[in-house]
Amino acid sequence: MPETRNQLLKVAIDAMGGDNAPSVPVEGAVQSAKSGLAEVFIVGDSDPVQQELAKHEIGGLPIHFVPSEGKIEDNEPPALAVRQKPTASILVATNLVKNKTADAVISMGSTGGAMAASVVLLGTIEGIERPAIGGPVIGSAPNQTILDLGSNLDCKPSQLLGFGVLGSVFSKLLLGVDNPKIGLLSVGSEEGKGNIQSKEASALFKKSGLNFIGNIEGNDLVTGKADVVVCDGFVGNVILKLVEGLGRGLASQLKASLMGKLTDDHLNALIEDLYKKNNVVDARGGGPVLGVNGVSIIGHGNASAGTVERAVGLAQMCVETKLIEELNKEVSMVMSTVDD
Amino acid sequence: MPETRNQLLKVAIDAMGGDNAPSVPVEGAVQSAKSGLAEVFIVGDSDPVQQELAKHEIGGLPIHFVPSEGKIEDNEPPALAVRQKPTASILVATNLVKNKTADAVISMGSTGGAMAASVVLLGTIEGIERPAIGGPVIGSAPNQTILDLGSNLDCKPSQLLGFGVLGSVFSKLLLGVDNPKIGLLSVGSEEGKGNIQSKEASALFKKSGLNFIGNIEGNDLVTGKADVVVCDGFVGNVILKLVEGLGRGLASQLKASLMGKLTDDHLNALIEDLYKKNNVVDARGGGPVLGVNGVSIIGHGNASAGTVERAVGLAQMCVETKLIEELNKEVSMVMSTVDD
Repeated sequence: MPETRNQLLKVAIDAMGGDNAPSVPVEGAVQSAKSGLAEVFIVGDSDPVQQELAKHEIGGLPIHFVPSEGKIEDNEPPALAVRQKPTASILVATNLVKNKTADAVISMGSTGGAMAASVVLLGTIEGIERPAIGGPVIGSAPNQTILDLGSNLDCKPSQLLGFGVLGSVFSKLLLGVDNPKIGLLSVGSEEGKGNIQSKEASALFKKSGLNFIGNIEGNDLVTGKADVVVCDGFVGNVILKLVEGLGRGLASQLKASLMGKLTDDHLNALIEDLYKKNNVVDARGGGPVLGVNGVSIIGHGNASAGTVERAVGLAQMCVETKLIEELNKEVSMVMSTVDD
Repeated sequence: MPETRNQLLKVAIDAMGGDNAPSVPVEGAVQSAKSGLAEVFIVGDSDPVQQELAKHEIGGLPIHFVPSEGKIEDNEPPALAVRQKPTASILVATNLVKNKTADAVISMGSTGGAMAASVVLLGTIEGIERPAIGGPVIGSAPNQTILDLGSNLDCKPSQLLGFGVLGSVFSKLLLGVDNPKIGLLSVGSEEGKGNIQSKEASALFKKSGLNFIGNIEGNDLVTGKADVVVCDGFVGNVILKLVEGLGRGLASQLKASLMGKLTDDHLNALIEDLYKKNNVVDARGGGPVLGVNGVSIIGHGNASAGTVERAVGLAQMCVETKLIEELNKEVSMVMSTVDD
């Protein structure tokens, strides 16, 4: 029988992370508390955060302020920054999950910083060397999870297998896909096509017990042939940025060629629709760091307060579906099929 | 003073290659001879090719038939097929270049087969381990050469440097780009971002004397930030197929959402325009195998006779611009900057 959660979700929000920090994270946190989504712990430098909080009516709401000092910047090498700035907001916020004050942490700041903090404070799941980030990328396949999207640039075949497990659990629990089909991105669907890495990974997938459908190719991403697409973070990041770039380029190209031929309303609706279909990453509020022992959600740097709220909703889903427990179970099962 | 060619270009055409062989290659060959583009050597199985030739008025035209037996299929391992089928059309045709009967060879058949034949019979340029294929891929950047597109899946950093030279000469001589800017595809434009392969390649590019602009990212492909984009064939092939797939997907998506809102003429023109902008590979007739000591053009399997004619035009350009001599000169200069 599924357990029901009677307690309100407790979320630590990194108030210093993102392009419009601390105003946007604070506003998103307040909204989340107001709407009854969560009890929030707002973590950040005292003065600026208190100033932002003063702009909102927060009397009686489940909002706490937790002071930190400094932040990890986007351009800092994350591993080093985590060691050099122990009082930075993302570390203090992630620590609230570690010591079980909060159920989840959310940051719109440096992706590398949030990942490094989660690895150091929450630890990786046994069998996973480094966590991954993944999610839907291509508009025509909104329930297709691609991973890794950039955190693991040089991958051993067994790491790709790990991504398959992480992606499969993500797909099942957070996207509601039943028995997700896992495809390995390569240059040909035939057996034996690929580079050394993908050929070795393919052999591991075959004996993994996962629902592996074999190699898929670049064009298969568009049709969503696989529910989970496994690739290394170098390839995934190129895909992510290429698709975003093409979406932007296309919108302006279309706008130019259709100006005057459609009503402005039709044109704007079309462009917005196309933009959404080609930039699906924004819509979800963010994605969980996959492979660490705790819920850590990374959002887009240019998030709005609404994005922060959606990220809180995602955190809730991770907690309610017992994402971390399920990941531990599945990873342990699948990784035991790999000989060392 | 530039030499002028008084002689007609001599081209060997693999009549057995492509989805509609031998009818399309034969028709394209006949057209090329008729239009005064080239003296053609049609290579293929006697009966079917003679039957096709009989359908055309070829009296007095510079057309020769050269018999071969069998062909290399798309799904055959090329290296093996080249050894096992010495009489296959692509081998007989490529041999005409080797023995200087023809200036160039053109095939719409197996890419791997044509590359393997060119390596075995023409040899690679000194300093190049294996040839590459490259060319424009993204419609919004029609003069941007991306290579390798799939023939080299596991690349050493020095091979990436080689692609840079090959692409640079291709860009200059065949696309008319002056002093082409070379970018290395990676996951961040900052110094030091990338996987092991790209970081090592970046160091080689920096001391190569090439016009290297550093790392570029997936979104930079859309804007054509670099004239030559260097990546390994695994990444290049994923990009090529993804872009083709997105172009197709988008055309049908737009068609559905604009039906009835635009006149049919406008709609069809728009779709065609978009298709062309997103499938630039077709427009050129094919691409040369880059890095072998002779002109070998590979075209699309679903080519029309017009494509074959365009491929003959491309062959002419390769010969007239002295592509092979220039490649030898540049490769030798740049590869001497690499310590072994």
